[in-house]
Amino acid sequence: MSTLLERLAGPVAVPDPDAVEQARHRQRTLTKPPGSLGRLEALAVWFAARQGRVQPALDRVQITVFAADHGVAAEGVSAFPQSVTVEMLRNFAAGGAAIAVLARALGAALEVIDVGTATDPGPIGGVRGERVAAGSANIAQGPAMTEAQLASACQVGIDAMHRARAAGAHLFVGAEMGIGNTTAASALGCALLNLPASELVGPGTGLGREGIQRKAELVARSLALNGNPQHPPLELLRRLGGLEIAALVGAYVACAQHGLPALVDGFIGTAAALAATRVNPGTADWLLYAHRSGEPGHARLLDALGADPLLDLGMRLGEGSGAAVAVPLLRLACRLHGEMATFGEAGVTEGNG
Amino acid sequence: MSTLLERLAGPVAVPDPDAVEQARHRQRTLTKPPGSLGRLEALAVWFAARQGRVQPALDRVQITVFAADHGVAAEGVSAFPQSVTVEMLRNFAAGGAAIAVLARALGAALEVIDVGTATDPGPIGGVRGERVAAGSANIAQGPAMTEAQLASACQVGIDAMHRARAAGAHLFVGAEMGIGNTTAASALGCALLNLPASELVGPGTGLGREGIQRKAELVARSLALNGNPQHPPLELLRRLGGLEIAALVGAYVACAQHGLPALVDGFIGTAAALAATRVNPGTADWLLYAHRSGEPGHARLLDALGADPLLDLGMRLGEGSGAAVAVPLLRLACRLHGEMATFGEAGVTEGNG
Repeated sequence: MSTLLERLAGPVAVPDPDAVEQARHRQRTLTKPPGSLGRLEALAVWFAARQGRVQPALDRVQITVFAADHGVAAEGVSAFPQSVTVEMLRNFAAGGAAIAVLARALGAALEVIDVGTATDPGPIGGVRGERVAAGSANIAQGPAMTEAQLASACQVGIDAMHRARAAGAHLFVGAEMGIGNTTAASALGCALLNLPASELVGPGTGLGREGIQRKAELVARSLALNGNPQHPPLELLRRLGGLEIAALVGAYVACAQHGLPALVDGFIGTAAALAATRVNPGTADWLLYAHRSGEPGHARLLDALGADPLLDLGMRLGEGSGAAVAVPLLRLACRLHGEMATFGEAGVTEGNG
Repeated sequence: MSTLLERLAGPVAVPDPDAVEQARHRQRTLTKPPGSLGRLEALAVWFAARQGRVQPALDRVQITVFAADHGVAAEGVSAFPQSVTVEMLRNFAAGGAAIAVLARALGAALEVIDVGTATDPGPIGGVRGERVAAGSANIAQGPAMTEAQLASACQVGIDAMHRARAAGAHLFVGAEMGIGNTTAASALGCALLNLPASELVGPGTGLGREGIQRKAELVARSLALNGNPQHPPLELLRRLGGLEIAALVGAYVACAQHGLPALVDGFIGTAAALAATRVNPGTADWLLYAHRSGEPGHARLLDALGADPLLDLGMRLGEGSGAAVAVPLLRLACRLHGEMATFGEAGVTEGNG
């Protein structure tokens, strides 16, 4: 645990202040009223700072799906049976899942990793088998992971980030799949923020009122057993998270340490981002938040992170789908910043506003 | 006027109820929890209904910029001089303006039309000269247009829609440029909604507090002279609108009459959409609203239309830029709807949610 903690606590990369200054200056010279592109202007400057160049690019986008199962699914906390995690692995690889369609439409690289489904599906073409365990343990009965499992799961995410970086990715989209993972993410978020279960528990993939009530009771039980707020964040992740959530935490921290901007998706991704920024606060500088999910607890997590996401479309699928849908906005922000003519180039008179 | 009114009041196309039913059914069979793609699901069904097919496409997008000047600019209501309208025409055609960059990035067709700048720039490559007048007249001193000018300006928009439709466009983005046009749009919106000037007047391209105050007084004066709320909407458009606003109204109504969905941009576009739906209420069925602009009065116009736009990024440039930025969301909604695997195809177990 201490070795893992040391790795994750290492310093993050520092955005380039000269690139910020030059990108801001460029924005002021483009043929439009100052500020009239709203958040797109700040986004272009944000990427300029992190790519260390005035005109950033977002051509190469890496989407990595971490899939794993959760012992807590045995308690009936999802509208879908646990077998769906493996079924969806095949659907990701075959190109029929939402995130596969989106990756294709965006021209993004898609990597799918089995971090630990409950039953080993054997080799699946297009899926990396990096199984840490046959799912995490039931958090209502004990810790989700051993220390060794936590370290291995984080490492899966760290390794994925390194592959993305080696391939020249400009942006990392961490995605997840795992029946039961809104339960784990709710429990982890409540523990990190010292909130009661009812604050974060919601319908997930589609529970009704009774199901949500049962899920909240289960999260409360898990918190009583595993959620001592005095525990350090990495210990709370071990006790209440899941294998794919730990992989996301490893990936986000590594993105920040190695200077690769990451776009966070929905409820699960944001819970992982919260854990990542508690483990290493500098991580926050490298994360963007894509959307406000339809899962009610998401707003609470975003508030805790001071995040103001780009989209609010009522999406609540996970799989990185909300992040993928936001990618074109980021790309267009960079294209506008890089390709618009300046007042001087276009012979347009500047305003006095 | 009566001929124009008759043309604009003609019946609109009717979305296909069978396609709606089939598209909704398809949504329920896709490998995701029902409803989990949020607004993207309803958008796909919306386009299915309007294209009369279960799996709609949004490959071909037409962006048409209508540019014109406003006599009211002489009163000093903009942070930019009137010469900028023509300068920006050249910038659109040369590819350096925001909307030109966005059209290129989207692979959209871009058409730029001079509906009447104050000084005739002569032929500009890439700009259609369809000049109705040397700008509209000063609305603080009299009506913006004669009846003949209003009819001609609307016809410019109607013709543009027909060209888009003939080229096989799946979506029409009406865009505008004209120094002073937030003043005209504010006046038109106030007259249509019977609101005082202060409710809609804002900074436009970048007025300060004093400038906004002066602009509000000017709009109040224009309303007293031209804004009798008893006038029919087309007469209010003639008295308080502008040539490019009238072209947008013609285009929106024609889109609805000929079954071409239109994506409305910001403050000016929404004022034109309000006029269009007052002239022909059926127009509303064919309009989507792209974004909530940073111009404060936009929210009021959107409320009046019952519109819930897709994006809220603080953009306030006009030129169709906010609409262009929303195009990828619509395209991704259609791609997901068309390309995701069904539960049956993918062998994924359905949920009980």
